Amino acid sequence: MLSFESDYIEGAHEQILQRLVETNLEQLSGYGQDIYCERAKEKIRKACACSEADIFFLTGGTQTNTIAIDALLKPYEGVVAAKTGHVSTHEAGAIEHHGHKVLELSQHQGKISGEELRAFLERFWQDENHEHMVFPGMVYISHPTEYGTLYTKAELEELSTVCHAYEIPLYLDGARLGYGLMSPGTDVTLPIIAKCCDAFYIGGTKVGALCGEALVFPKKNMPKYFLTIVKQHGALLAKGRLLGIQFDTLFTDDLYFQISRHAIEMAMLLKEGILRKGYACCLESPTNQQFVLLENAKYQALKREVAMSFWEKPDSEHTVVRLATSWATRQEDVEAFLALL
Amino acid sequence: MLSFESDYIEGAHEQILQRLVETNLEQLSGYGQDIYCERAKEKIRKACACSEADIFFLTGGTQTNTIAIDALLKPYEGVVAAKTGHVSTHEAGAIEHHGHKVLELSQHQGKISGEELRAFLERFWQDENHEHMVFPGMVYISHPTEYGTLYTKAELEELSTVCHAYEIPLYLDGARLGYGLMSPGTDVTLPIIAKCCDAFYIGGTKVGALCGEALVFPKKNMPKYFLTIVKQHGALLAKGRLLGIQFDTLFTDDLYFQISRHAIEMAMLLKEGILRKGYACCLESPTNQQFVLLENAKYQALKREVAMSFWEKPDSEHTVVRLATSWATRQEDVEAFLALL
Amino acid sequence: MLSFESDYIEGAHEQILQRLVETNLEQLSGYGQDIYCERAKEKIRKACACSEADIFFLTGGTQTNTIAIDALLKPYEGVVAAKTGHVSTHEAGAIEHHGHKVLELSQHQGKISGEELRAFLERFWQDENHEHMVFPGMVYISHPTEYGTLYTKAELEELSTVCHAYEIPLYLDGARLGYGLMSPGTDVTLPIIAKCCDAFYIGGTKVGALCGEALVFPKKNMPKYFLTIVKQHGALLAKGRLLGIQFDTLFTDDLYFQISRHAIEMAMLLKEGILRKGYACCLESPTNQQFVLLENAKYQALKREVAMSFWEKPDSEHTVVRLATSWATRQEDVEAFLALL
Amino acid sequence: MLSFESDYIEGAHEQILQRLVETNLEQLSGYGQDIYCERAKEKIRKACACSEADIFFLTGGTQTNTIAIDALLKPYEGVVAAKTGHVSTHEAGAIEHHGHKVLELSQHQGKISGEELRAFLERFWQDENHEHMVFPGMVYISHPTEYGTLYTKAELEELSTVCHAYEIPLYLDGARLGYGLMSPGTDVTLPIIAKCCDAFYIGGTKVGALCGEALVFPKKNMPKYFLTIVKQHGALLAKGRLLGIQFDTLFTDDLYFQISRHAIEMAMLLKEGILRKGYACCLESPTNQQFVLLENAKYQALKREVAMSFWEKPDSEHTVVRLATSWATRQEDVEAFLALL
Repeated sequence: MLSFESDYIEGAHEQILQRLVETNLEQLSGYGQDIYCERAKEKIRKACACSEADIFFLTGGTQTNTIAIDALLKPYEGVVAAKTGHVSTHEAGAIEHHGHKVLELSQHQGKISGEELRAFLERFWQDENHEHMVFPGMVYISHPTEYGTLYTKAELEELSTVCHAYEIPLYLDGARLGYGLMSPGTDVTLPIIAKCCDAFYIGGTKVGALCGEALVFPKKNMPKYFLTIVKQHGALLAKGRLLGIQFDTLFTDDLYFQISRHAIEMAMLLKEGILRKGYACCLESPTNQQFVLLENAKYQALKREVAMSFWEKPDSEHTVVRLATSWATRQEDVEAFLALL
Repeated sequence: MLSFESDYIEGAHEQILQRLVETNLEQLSGYGQDIYCERAKEKIRKACACSEADIFFLTGGTQTNTIAIDALLKPYEGVVAAKTGHVSTHEAGAIEHHGHKVLELSQHQGKISGEELRAFLERFWQDENHEHMVFPGMVYISHPTEYGTLYTKAELEELSTVCHAYEIPLYLDGARLGYGLMSPGTDVTLPIIAKCCDAFYIGGTKVGALCGEALVFPKKNMPKYFLTIVKQHGALLAKGRLLGIQFDTLFTDDLYFQISRHAIEMAMLLKEGILRKGYACCLESPTNQQFVLLENAKYQALKREVAMSFWEKPDSEHTVVRLATSWATRQEDVEAFLALL
Repeated sequence: MLSFESDYIEGAHEQILQRLVETNLEQLSGYGQDIYCERAKEKIRKACACSEADIFFLTGGTQTNTIAIDALLKPYEGVVAAKTGHVSTHEAGAIEHHGHKVLELSQHQGKISGEELRAFLERFWQDENHEHMVFPGMVYISHPTEYGTLYTKAELEELSTVCHAYEIPLYLDGARLGYGLMSPGTDVTLPIIAKCCDAFYIGGTKVGALCGEALVFPKKNMPKYFLTIVKQHGALLAKGRLLGIQFDTLFTDDLYFQISRHAIEMAMLLKEGILRKGYACCLESPTNQQFVLLENAKYQALKREVAMSFWEKPDSEHTVVRLATSWATRQEDVEAFLALL
Repeated sequence: MLSFESDYIEGAHEQILQRLVETNLEQLSGYGQDIYCERAKEKIRKACACSEADIFFLTGGTQTNTIAIDALLKPYEGVVAAKTGHVSTHEAGAIEHHGHKVLELSQHQGKISGEELRAFLERFWQDENHEHMVFPGMVYISHPTEYGTLYTKAELEELSTVCHAYEIPLYLDGARLGYGLMSPGTDVTLPIIAKCCDAFYIGGTKVGALCGEALVFPKKNMPKYFLTIVKQHGALLAKGRLLGIQFDTLFTDDLYFQISRHAIEMAMLLKEGILRKGYACCLESPTNQQFVLLENAKYQALKREVAMSFWEKPDSEHTVVRLATSWATRQEDVEAFLALL
């Protein structure tokens, strides 16, 4: 059976497994104090053109968002996010479980607007009762968004300007960052992200790793005693090498970017085929997630041969499905899918 | 340089790596809903002689303790533990961060006594002011303890009897469980643990895995919507296969027990050598951690050639160090260490 | 200067102060275990026509909402509320601080609709990913709402039916409950609320008390060890008598209802005068809060002589202000205000 | 029946009630922004000889401790306290519920020793694993202690010196502060406390108020947006006047000190009588709580005529009871008790 269900259905890129095997019996210190973590950090700093960046490796996206947000906010603050932001919808309330409200803004194809953000912040500070409300303490965006869309460089810069005018950090969830950076036509690069954002993470789990996200604080602004904070959240890995070796491999010889580009090429092939066959792609996604509108009967038939994610029912006759490509997607599988369509 | 610093200085047992490589490109569902997780659970149920057990795989010990305790306690309850219990001393306050007090009992070589537990619980319920105090809502023990010591079957049964008389669960932290089960002379088995305890975890990180702990609820008592609780704590791995494959391998052909036995053999070799050379082992540890009393000068000299953990200074002239063996310890390294001593 | 700023600008009804003075030197047990708390509970049970109700006295509205919601929800659950619900907007994130998300529904004049609630709950349970989301664990409504509006008996019954179909409690915030119950034309009574809701509070702070809210669990469903939960939230008053004596007084000879009726009479007088003078009341409020549309210049002039609450600016030329009457409002002040208008 | 059960069995000092009555119909702003709160603060600043002090009024002791500690600590820090400290034993886990561990030190008649504190802090910072532990982030003491004992000026100064050497705040729980300050022989004054401590509260509930504690930050160090933090904890009183008027009255013409002195005089009368009659006072308490050793039979007999607090059973033949005097204790009741003894 074919599967475009998600970008985390396979294990890890083979070079990662190979490096895990090669280094397996080396005796290394625990908790991220090993040479591979160090090397990975150094390579990520270079890729971000940010020699001062502090970096911490964690195992998953919800974990990284929760810890970053909890560590950056003061107790009386909440995080501003799009109504469709992952932190607001699909993290089982992890942000609130750790004490903070998600302050929702409207979404536009998954993105928030700098102008609306500015108006929101202004309104808050002008409200006579704001001391009885949750203070907006940081801004969360995802790039690519949950809808596969991307911010432009100008949009990122505007969000950054607004945040800094109000002295709150801008945080970017890069669960699928590689796929965003390799999208044709984007003018956003890793150094631009490091410049605009006060914290962000480079996703590994969905981009070739077994597990792992690299949380970056580009401005010497990692919260004090961050290791202790991570431990307190139950997220400090004893064998930190598992994360260090993976990111060291991903950031050697541009592997992270190469495998991301492959996923994008597969996604574009898929998209072109879908359009060519007369189907519509809802949402103009330039990344590895494509959203296809199918008649219900077609959907039911396809489902028997292809694993896909149900997205929504726009009306009683149609179904939107999400297809995801990844570093591991094979061209022959894309072609097989298009033949079935 | 030799290292007996801890039991997590190497990667994973080679069979685990091999299985990760072999299964790497299989397309599997996420979040633990894959065939390897299922197989691993089935094998663990057999090893526990407990066909009804619910099992959940998590990545680390502090994480597992935090989530199990938070899920089993009601908000107004705390967890009873030895003063030296890992949850009370070395988890950066993760239990309290999630809202619960650790209620400390005296420790006897790292263990708590059934009699003292009973007296503590009795005193609580007789206290006229107990509604103004933290309710003892469960009991935490570690086996082996932080001092390498073991409960006997009779001691476990007594703790279990006391807990059940007061209708609170008994929870066992098995970060190094394999090393406890393979200790010569122990009369505690996995089925006995499954019978006496209401929840426990079988440690993988320190016993041959890259990461991973198997949390077992032997009595159809896994808290409802546990997956959501795990997600809310940021601990749900997208690629659950990483944990499933490791535990499936560890519980195939008794690998977990074999490699644990090896560590114990190495520990006993080490211990005999130490005693033979006229040194004293503080704490009578029958497991993979040995605590050696050294004169300060000897300690300083050894330190240049062997990585060890500083334990404590019993007086101004001496130092106690901890030496840990593991599934990966080589006999030649034990001999080399003894030669240096 | 005249003031219609809020319904908590004066102290307490004189009968309350008199009873505090009369009972002052009686020696009473602490923490709510006194005869006045008992009597107040008994009288409230009668007023609710609910002989089984458990009642607990707390000091303020945010405190009561926070504790009731925290005690009724499981950790992985959130509370459903109108976007304009007090818990979502003006409690400084107290609900989230205690670990729970507020799941927002649309508001219609401050109210939620039974139909939309049902659709929301249905959608949640049908979503394949609901285990990755916050579970709707209870429903919060305010009566009167933040806009002064009221549910009808039929609307309350529908919300109750929906909640019970999904096995979640319906909770009513009655900060201004007296003013709602005495509104002309309402068909909602205290016994109806006790029948429809699983928990609710009868507001004292805004209805004649110095401080105090009576939290009612009408169905023998007070969470176990609730006193301990209250203490843990820092909300257990040592001199519980302060709350008991106040509610005992308010529920003697219908004082609570009489003084509420007075506030409504004053509000209606105010409203009639405002309309008569050609001003518009935004929001059709039948309770003690009236929302008046003023030209900016008129607003600026009035402000110099009358304390009012700024509500919003519907356009650049106008301002909406809120005027609140209370148990303590004097008819001569209403007339003085109308003369100024 | 006589009662020496606690110091909160009566209502409030009559001057407080009188002021509440006199000011009752004044229209005042809510949330502590009224003239009486201002006046009370100004008088407290004078009494503390600390013109810069920030002061916030709260309703109870556990509430004040919880909020002060939660606001002063960083998330990864805990509060150091005596094993017998109220925060560790009798606050239902409120500190832990808000995320922080209580780090226990030995107690000496309810007090902690500066030397032991210094050793504890030194040990923490020297421990190689301290990043895996809870950081000691502040020190909690009570004065008088739970055993009625008092620190000397020299002891307070030493604790202050140690805290400041480690850059952590010293916090004093003054639930019964008046009784401590009026104890014969003490060399501790309010200005000395304001100088030694970084935060402390002046207890009202047990010293003549209906409810209320004045939390003092003497060094311009009130946490930012403290009102919002208080609201988030559900502790912001709408009618802040209730607290302001009480403290304004207590700090007018030294009322607080006068009524405290009365309680001490009654306690000394009680103590002398007890000793004269041949009974032993356990614990050398110079304040309003006295601890008397009784034979069980005597205890049973007395209990029928006097309400007292059971304290402990030192052996099977004896019982220790606690007798508390207060601002409201009548000399004739002390004499009646002594006659019964």
